[in-house]
Amino acid sequence: MPRYRITVEYDGGPFYGWQWQNDLPSVQGVLQMAVERLSGERVTVQGAGRTDAGVHALGQVAHFDLTRDYDPGTVRDAMNAHLRPHPVAVLSADIVTSEFDARRSAVRRHYLYRIVNRRPDLALDRDRAWRQPRPLDAEAMHAAAQRLVGKHDFTTFRSTECQAASPVKTLDKLDVIRAANEVQVIAVARSFLHNQVRSMVGSLALVGDKKWTADDLSRALEAHDRRACAPVAPPQGLYLVKVDY
Amino acid sequence: MPRYRITVEYDGGPFYGWQWQNDLPSVQGVLQMAVERLSGERVTVQGAGRTDAGVHALGQVAHFDLTRDYDPGTVRDAMNAHLRPHPVAVLSADIVTSEFDARRSAVRRHYLYRIVNRRPDLALDRDRAWRQPRPLDAEAMHAAAQRLVGKHDFTTFRSTECQAASPVKTLDKLDVIRAANEVQVIAVARSFLHNQVRSMVGSLALVGDKKWTADDLSRALEAHDRRACAPVAPPQGLYLVKVDY
Repeated sequence: MPRYRITVEYDGGPFYGWQWQNDLPSVQGVLQMAVERLSGERVTVQGAGRTDAGVHALGQVAHFDLTRDYDPGTVRDAMNAHLRPHPVAVLSADIVTSEFDARRSAVRRHYLYRIVNRRPDLALDRDRAWRQPRPLDAEAMHAAAQRLVGKHDFTTFRSTECQAASPVKTLDKLDVIRAANEVQVIAVARSFLHNQVRSMVGSLALVGDKKWTADDLSRALEAHDRRACAPVAPPQGLYLVKVDY
Repeated sequence: MPRYRITVEYDGGPFYGWQWQNDLPSVQGVLQMAVERLSGERVTVQGAGRTDAGVHALGQVAHFDLTRDYDPGTVRDAMNAHLRPHPVAVLSADIVTSEFDARRSAVRRHYLYRIVNRRPDLALDRDRAWRQPRPLDAEAMHAAAQRLVGKHDFTTFRSTECQAASPVKTLDKLDVIRAANEVQVIAVARSFLHNQVRSMVGSLALVGDKKWTADDLSRALEAHDRRACAPVAPPQGLYLVKVDY
């Protein structure tokens, strides 16, 4: 019973998120369809991160088991053929041991959040970034972001629907950098709470817009209260970049 | 009678090209619609480059005349409001003298062609780049490209439908660079023939794939014969980046 690991890129726009839902298009659903067409087997494709509706992936990782041994290159190419025309691509496939679990074995998840800081609407980056018309101070955002790095109770930055047992997480990195009119937020942690990155980005945007100071951000964190969070940044700017094992 | 110059970004995907066509969506058509809604005046929006169907722009330039004086920032914002939901954005607007002509005053046009060199389908870059599954030698492409730089009869690299009076053009720059799995072709000239960039890119792709040598490219150029051209690269990889005046 070989286990396959796949790395997947997708445009989250047309999907109701990663997770399979009856009668609604999901990334997990189209991947499971592709595996079934390839092998005739109904499997669960277990992902490293359950991205929300509209959230993209450059390097989501998932695993599934098949009874038959396939060449991994065949799995990749056949899945891609069956995935068309969905905007989901299997970048690589390999065989792993049954100890490997895309979700539980992950030691670090890397997310990118793209803000395009300009007044005109986005034409080419529509549904690929969050447009912020007011000038953002990326240096102030980066400095404030360091208040969130480390081990904290992130209740403020967690969806009320989050099902994690504990709100305590360790954030390894939260960098904010500017390249021309794009402000990027890079977030790295072993795992994140539901909506955590978008909640942190929404709050950092207020810092960039001079509506919040770094101290305001610290107070929001320490409140351990969802109501202290700024409006959550929209999904289309968020990318699951890669997962380390 | 003030003249306005606008810089425009667009996703060429939904349009039958820049040029207005009766009953077919065009970039020029939606811009003229936006100007009319803003001012009540029917105008011709004259562009620097008549991009083909599917070709994108990061910085197309155009001009039009109105009888009334508007604040340029108002023109930009009002046009953007009327352009929604089309993927066309006016990045800037300003008032210029009546000597300015977006097409005739241009001294240099900058194009970018994006090739994503990988086997899996494109998910996030679908309709934004050309996927080439076989490994391309970007250095060989760059070296061969230099054979096309300078003043030449580009009949080989010109659509049979091209209406330019002369096939002789001066190509200022044709660079090929690789960044990870993306191969970019940068083409700069005062003006280009119809389909010239895509024709050159199609031929360079054969060089990158070792099917043509640089000498084959020179022979194609010197043939002055459209039949000597390689298959034309598809439109979705091409971007009009900027226009110099």
